[in-house]
Amino acid sequence: MSKISDRSAALAQIEGLIRDVPDFPKPGIIFKDITPLLGDAKGFALAIDLMAADLGHLKPEYIVGTESRGFIFGAALAYELGAGFIPVRKPGKLPAAVHSCEYDLEYGTDAVEVHRDALQHGARTLIVDDLLATGGTARATGELLRRLGADLLGYAFLIELAFLNGRQQMADAPVQSLIIIE
Amino acid sequence: MSKISDRSAALAQIEGLIRDVPDFPKPGIIFKDITPLLGDAKGFALAIDLMAADLGHLKPEYIVGTESRGFIFGAALAYELGAGFIPVRKPGKLPAAVHSCEYDLEYGTDAVEVHRDALQHGARTLIVDDLLATGGTARATGELLRRLGADLLGYAFLIELAFLNGRQQMADAPVQSLIIIE
Repeated sequence: MSKISDRSAALAQIEGLIRDVPDFPKPGIIFKDITPLLGDAKGFALAIDLMAADLGHLKPEYIVGTESRGFIFGAALAYELGAGFIPVRKPGKLPAAVHSCEYDLEYGTDAVEVHRDALQHGARTLIVDDLLATGGTARATGELLRRLGADLLGYAFLIELAFLNGRQQMADAPVQSLIIIE
Repeated sequence: MSKISDRSAALAQIEGLIRDVPDFPKPGIIFKDITPLLGDAKGFALAIDLMAADLGHLKPEYIVGTESRGFIFGAALAYELGAGFIPVRKPGKLPAAVHSCEYDLEYGTDAVEVHRDALQHGARTLIVDDLLATGGTARATGELLRRLGADLLGYAFLIELAFLNGRQQMADAPVQSLIIIE
């Protein structure tokens, strides 16, 4: 991990690498595209280093990442912080016995799953994802961790779309976001 | 990155954390479940460190990971090697203009996509995934990189199921696997 000497300059650099794509996935939505950030070696490392600097004091034993984009930041952070990585996946993808939790979509429902033997009861665990929007998947992931008996340290996001009030869904643990869009 | 003093002991430790799950996703298939490896902080770090040690001399500017499990090893390796990370995704997930490549499944076809502006022509690029089975997605990912004009340095896998002969699909660049199952 590199030391960050100027946090606000680093955040500005990261924000400059997030691209707005209008009308994706449907008309009227402005999609926050992180692929230019991921593809920029310095920007990607800076984002991981900043998240690691913010979260390292929590001393997580496990980082949980939600399929698919949560795997990207979750795995790199787990490696950097010396934690194990737990994938939370879409239904039917994990091969052993799972806990499953449904969450609401705009139309209908979806679900996330985790292996029942993913962690030891009481393990210090942090949920990481790239984006906090309405908070449905993060809340469902938190519920899975409660069923596993994890010590949930918090939720960490690269980007938070604050105007969607997703943070209100996670009353059970602190929420930390690198970039908050009002 | 930690130094690996005993490579064969490290490989044995990693292999011991890969779990066979019989009859998944269907009867007769033995699924190689890497979740115990991912969840073991030391084992996960060891796997990334060994792959980084094997691949670092190639000096990749970009690591390409294929959705979803390829994101896990790809992102951690990109961070460790100081490279950018390029996600190759299932159809309809990437918001900007894409190249798309179909590949055959046992029944029917699927496809993978990459952003057309993902890299500069001639950029040194490495494809990373957790598992080489029949090689369909890896070959399709290689084809996407050719269309982008990348300098394809090779394909790197955590596990190779050698009895499926997937390696034969990738004649265009070297294939390196940490664990080869004959």
